[in-house]
Amino acid sequence: MIIQHPDQNKIRLEHVLAALGNPMRMMIVSVLADGGEHTCGSILKGISKSTLTHHWRVLRDSGIIWQIPSGRESLLSLRRDDLDIRFPGLLNAFLHAAECDELTKGVIRQFSV
Amino acid sequence: MIIQHPDQNKIRLEHVLAALGNPMRMMIVSVLADGGEHTCGSILKGISKSTLTHHWRVLRDSGIIWQIPSGRESLLSLRRDDLDIRFPGLLNAFLHAAECDELTKGVIRQFSV
Repeated sequence: MIIQHPDQNKIRLEHVLAALGNPMRMMIVSVLADGGEHTCGSILKGISKSTLTHHWRVLRDSGIIWQIPSGRESLLSLRRDDLDIRFPGLLNAFLHAAECDELTKGVIRQFSV
Repeated sequence: MIIQHPDQNKIRLEHVLAALGNPMRMMIVSVLADGGEHTCGSILKGISKSTLTHHWRVLRDSGIIWQIPSGRESLLSLRRDDLDIRFPGLLNAFLHAAECDELTKGVIRQFSV
């Protein structure tokens, strides 16, 4: 399995914003914000494989996450350094809202495992 | 003409991000960042009325802009205070990228009047 990721200098702000602007992807990014690698299956449960595959692809193609094959699974992690270099403050502002804004926390909580 | 806007405490992060994640709306917001009121017609030219109406509605419904009727036109302005209170740093990070990131500047420039 070969998975393409955009180089850091090809990441586009409009793709990042559009990718982040979805409740399920907000939840995924808030989990990956711990800096670790997570298996796909550990982040969201009870969601169809095709739906998950779609969300991983949107996050990966926009340059928000790395998706690295590992055996029969793949490991996901946040491209925090790349995003911080290209769009300083953007991810921090997003994660601050995800942690502190009541409405945003509610949106994320509905998908939390 | 009655135009609805979400109250500050009803603005949702996922709607703001999705609304910002579009080249034409990025350009509109970067113009409104000067803090002034702009007529709809002064921001984008050569775009069909239905397309413009769609973009104003997305920006207005997500809580990013005020759209205030004024005679036969309407005046647009950025809800900067509301966004800064709800999502500190988010708009600044967006506008920084719009001013400093080469790829983002290119996207915005293609729609500039």
